[in-house]
Amino acid sequence: MAINIATWNARIPLAQAIATLLKHRDYRLVLVESCTCGNVVGSLAVVPGISQWLCGGLASYRNDSKHQWLDIPQSMLDDPAMGPVSAPVTGLLAQQALVRTPEATVAAAVTGHLGPGSPADLDGRVYFSCCTRNGGSTSTIAHVLKSPQPADSNDIASRALRIEEATLWVLEQVRAALQSS
Amino acid sequence: MAINIATWNARIPLAQAIATLLKHRDYRLVLVESCTCGNVVGSLAVVPGISQWLCGGLASYRNDSKHQWLDIPQSMLDDPAMGPVSAPVTGLLAQQALVRTPEATVAAAVTGHLGPGSPADLDGRVYFSCCTRNGGSTSTIAHVLKSPQPADSNDIASRALRIEEATLWVLEQVRAALQSS
Repeated sequence: MAINIATWNARIPLAQAIATLLKHRDYRLVLVESCTCGNVVGSLAVVPGISQWLCGGLASYRNDSKHQWLDIPQSMLDDPAMGPVSAPVTGLLAQQALVRTPEATVAAAVTGHLGPGSPADLDGRVYFSCCTRNGGSTSTIAHVLKSPQPADSNDIASRALRIEEATLWVLEQVRAALQSS
Repeated sequence: MAINIATWNARIPLAQAIATLLKHRDYRLVLVESCTCGNVVGSLAVVPGISQWLCGGLASYRNDSKHQWLDIPQSMLDDPAMGPVSAPVTGLLAQQALVRTPEATVAAAVTGHLGPGSPADLDGRVYFSCCTRNGGSTSTIAHVLKSPQPADSNDIASRALRIEEATLWVLEQVRAALQSS
């Protein structure tokens, strides 16, 4: 199986733009990733010297990690009308990242349903949330990925494409949020 | 600038092997990444269903993140004879990941000097550490990357190559550690 994704080529210009904005704003960023599981923060590390503005990231891939690392209430994660992939949980993940990372000034979080086996009406749905320590408010965006759901648990190619699409979309949102901050 | 790295193609077989071992051992894995900054945990997410055995990862990219998220003593991070890229800190990062992640049964950590601007005698040095909750002992391995240090802060291509080499090396070490556990 050969997967033709120009991973670094696509990620690098976005990582560079984010690094430049962090430097100009003198912000320190922390990320929380569920569905992209570290691929967003991993993209940013390609910029030499970014550790000056990048605190790091928490890839809280399971409910228990969201609860233990970021104090997301179990009641929100268990609520069938909300659950871990939802606007309220994504917003709270970003806010809690600021609480747990005292030197961070801006936080971004992502959750999403990459499949296979996503609920039909939620397949490909991702949420992005961003907040600044001084700005107070948290803005959350919902989006639907264009690449198709993996057919089954062996369809790694489709899964890689979805992770890549979600990663690039989040990088775009981080850039846009920093630009308008 | 075009960077020709077959990122997903190289990472996928290792991710699949690790997922299979986690399933067979019935282990839950948590990762701590400094120099690879989420690229290892991000690689594992390509396997559908791995959230059953993958708690997630902490990309503790700055000293403050290592201290705040994983309680690494400031005295170890500040000690010029030790510092954040060292065997003792890497071992403690893995141990502390188990403390902070109650449902994890195995933890792995990586630190390293990717450059540019690494101390000459430490350039390309990476440390990997792994421990299991019941096994008690922590084993730490030191390694030197083969790809050259980035020439300067604009040399993103060399930096991407180093991140990729370090990521694949860590994935190999996780696989080997699980195989021998």
